[in-house]
Amino acid sequence: MTWIAAVQLEPVVGDAAGNARRILDAVDDALAAGVDVVVLPELATSGYVFQTVEEARELAITAADPLFATCAERLAARPGAVLVLGFAERHGNRLHNSAALITEDGVQGVYRKVHLWDREKLWFTPGSAPPLVVDTAHGRIGLLICFDLEFPEWTRIAALAGADLLAVPVNWPDVGRTADERLDEQRIAVATSLMNRVAVVVADRTGSERGVDWCEGTCIVDARGRLRATAGRGAGSASADIDLQQARDKRQTGLVDTFGDRRPDLYAALLAPPA
Amino acid sequence: MTWIAAVQLEPVVGDAAGNARRILDAVDDALAAGVDVVVLPELATSGYVFQTVEEARELAITAADPLFATCAERLAARPGAVLVLGFAERHGNRLHNSAALITEDGVQGVYRKVHLWDREKLWFTPGSAPPLVVDTAHGRIGLLICFDLEFPEWTRIAALAGADLLAVPVNWPDVGRTADERLDEQRIAVATSLMNRVAVVVADRTGSERGVDWCEGTCIVDARGRLRATAGRGAGSASADIDLQQARDKRQTGLVDTFGDRRPDLYAALLAPPA
Repeated sequence: MTWIAAVQLEPVVGDAAGNARRILDAVDDALAAGVDVVVLPELATSGYVFQTVEEARELAITAADPLFATCAERLAARPGAVLVLGFAERHGNRLHNSAALITEDGVQGVYRKVHLWDREKLWFTPGSAPPLVVDTAHGRIGLLICFDLEFPEWTRIAALAGADLLAVPVNWPDVGRTADERLDEQRIAVATSLMNRVAVVVADRTGSERGVDWCEGTCIVDARGRLRATAGRGAGSASADIDLQQARDKRQTGLVDTFGDRRPDLYAALLAPPA
Repeated sequence: MTWIAAVQLEPVVGDAAGNARRILDAVDDALAAGVDVVVLPELATSGYVFQTVEEARELAITAADPLFATCAERLAARPGAVLVLGFAERHGNRLHNSAALITEDGVQGVYRKVHLWDREKLWFTPGSAPPLVVDTAHGRIGLLICFDLEFPEWTRIAALAGADLLAVPVNWPDVGRTADERLDEQRIAVATSLMNRVAVVVADRTGSERGVDWCEGTCIVDARGRLRATAGRGAGSASADIDLQQARDKRQTGLVDTFGDRRPDLYAALLAPPA
């Protein structure tokens, strides 16, 4: 069993030092509580609602930033523990909306968001690599970021690549949604689990930022589609003890296999017609 | 607006004449109520739980069966009305788990289930054509059958082919499920709508058959993911007045497009690697 937590953090746009402190505090708290895998929101280092590309650039860091080394030091308190963290990444002249997977041994991989949402397109360059899947002490963890989760091709690809758990930092904006509509992406997370037999952990953010509120949809879904924990409204976290081994068994009956029953021969030309 | 109904019928395995009567009664009732599009369950003509391939063959009919002409005659009572009906199809030496789309002008198309579930594999040959999308007086209707809905590649393909509404005859077996688990496929229907901006109508069946019960998950979801109607437990139906035009608009904001933001360049090799 793997103890998983997702923290509904409140980053503050522009306050890099304060955000670093909030991140490290959240990591320390999770480790003290015995958590194996902790997931923090998208762009947790920088905040989300940028006004200019210059502001985004100013707040972006590289994967070699000392913050990640400090995270790794903290993770040493619980050998094997894994942290997934969203950050604004500077990579040469480009900016990416990225997530890092970190252990006590440092950054194990960086994933760059492929499906950028709305004004993110004004500052970030989309990634062009497959979902990152890292083999950790707690199973194979696949990284996606926010809007990526809404592309069933992309979540399927991560599951086919062997992910037991999809770790998804998000910032789900609440733009005049009803209470029911605020749960829409959570519903997609549940269906993603049902259709792929993978666990899904989503860390959303909280805290009004430049007029934008958030769905606060932090949740943990096990590999059989059960919604095991949510964070509710405001600051908080969701945590649950999850059997990630379940994700390795794709059989539904002796004659039904979630992946084996796919028809890739029929999908290819239809999903991605030759240019 | 399009008035859509899904009827949670109770076919009886082996009772072809009785099933035909139940189908025609359901069609008449729907038309009398002013329904534009009526969907009936998978294998409504034959029942589901076959014991041998001989039994399945005995109950299978061709797309030229007089039942369909009779359905068309009934549909003439409401010009433009559409019926989607699941049936066991005999096609040469093969049996298929099929669905027909019928109007007053007769059968407009037949779709053969591509993703067969469990023991269906013992009697049926899987289809090998794309989801059928038919342009009707009430918009473009895409046909899928039951387990097909759980393959996000397949629902995406139907949506990309222009379906405004996915009409899905199903038989969702309830094999020792909890009340929560009985809603799992309905959750997939909702997420399918959210991820593709299509409406989804599912007609499940009722009535214990050779020891198998059913989830009775009949439901109607609009093109924005709202669950608009369910049939509840037992015999009954779900109906709702749906704006299918919503399915034509895939924009989420001025900068976000549900289909336009896909990355088919990245999907092709990963989803359907060359053999």
